Amino acid sequence: MIDHAQLKASATQVDIDQLCQQAIDFGFRNVCVNPAWTTYCSKRLDGTPVGICPVVGFPLGANTARIKVEEAREAVKNGAAELDIVINIGALRSGFTEFVEREIAAVVQAVRGVPVKVILETGDLDDDQKVKGCIAAADAGAAFVKTSTGYGRTGASLEDIALMHRTVGDRMGIKAAGGIRSFSTAYAMIEAGATRLGTSAGARILDELDAA
Amino acid sequence: MIDHAQLKASATQVDIDQLCQQAIDFGFRNVCVNPAWTTYCSKRLDGTPVGICPVVGFPLGANTARIKVEEAREAVKNGAAELDIVINIGALRSGFTEFVEREIAAVVQAVRGVPVKVILETGDLDDDQKVKGCIAAADAGAAFVKTSTGYGRTGASLEDIALMHRTVGDRMGIKAAGGIRSFSTAYAMIEAGATRLGTSAGARILDELDAA
Repeated sequence: MIDHAQLKASATQVDIDQLCQQAIDFGFRNVCVNPAWTTYCSKRLDGTPVGICPVVGFPLGANTARIKVEEAREAVKNGAAELDIVINIGALRSGFTEFVEREIAAVVQAVRGVPVKVILETGDLDDDQKVKGCIAAADAGAAFVKTSTGYGRTGASLEDIALMHRTVGDRMGIKAAGGIRSFSTAYAMIEAGATRLGTSAGARILDELDAA
Repeated sequence: MIDHAQLKASATQVDIDQLCQQAIDFGFRNVCVNPAWTTYCSKRLDGTPVGICPVVGFPLGANTARIKVEEAREAVKNGAAELDIVINIGALRSGFTEFVEREIAAVVQAVRGVPVKVILETGDLDDDQKVKGCIAAADAGAAFVKTSTGYGRTGASLEDIALMHRTVGDRMGIKAAGGIRSFSTAYAMIEAGATRLGTSAGARILDELDAA
């Protein structure tokens, strides 16, 4: 259930090597990396069950739809198993919900078959905007809605996971990300409806689980 | 000398309208915006002397060189007068200086004639890496080196401006950005060698200048 994330701008090749090795050792679902590392991870993880989940339009979501589509296509070509894309947050907040849905749909269609997770950045949205973002992601054919980038004002909250679960039900997966650093937080997120966790503390969380 | 910046993911159309109007009223050089707003600003600023400076690979610099080139080309097509691009910080920190230079050169060549400013994100670099970043930007044909995205650990410091000035001399412009919110800070940056300022507080800075 865990996407093992290293999304810092400052991450070096050594950091990415460590991320990949931990993902293999702990049996994480994916490594979640910035696009410049996709090809490298693809070589590094070849022959292992660990997938690669690059981010698209990350972390601001404020590049053009055309570039998001290009970035998504390239990531799949470079070995991505899944994609996490950031919505155009400013557009959603400006009331341009149809634009947001069309943009997500363009990415989903460009990489048909590859699950797309849609990051709402809930810390920038009110509840009405969160619901609209979820519906846009669902209608656009995305596989998951995801709370946060880890770069926003807030990370995942139980209230947001519950709201997202009420909105999309079991039609979509729900990924909690941002600030998940302990087993108890991870467990609470799952109880609230999360079906995937994005964290850089996956190793610690599984260690806590073993110790419990 | 001022690039008037609104680079928040959460910025709405109302925020961008305000940015453009202030740029016109105060006579700022450029508005500095995320790429999704370039076309809108282009219409909004048509017939005014204010330029548009979208950011590329912003703020992490960790997308692929190919996407940075595409993003730069599209921004110029959409009306950009200048571009601020973020280097691949992780690559520089990994010792891949040639890769960093080639990437910058690819962008410079793709938009020939449009001044490219290269954001180092000095808060993630040691002094040796800052110098190598400056030299890579100079050798790649960039017009400016710039300290920070405003999203990093630190903003512009006088020490960094002085180091950049010692490294590139008068061959290039130097843009100080990140945390410049008062006239005294702005003035000190210029004294240290900055030839352009990136700030969201340009209006306040000029008000302070008038009051002085």
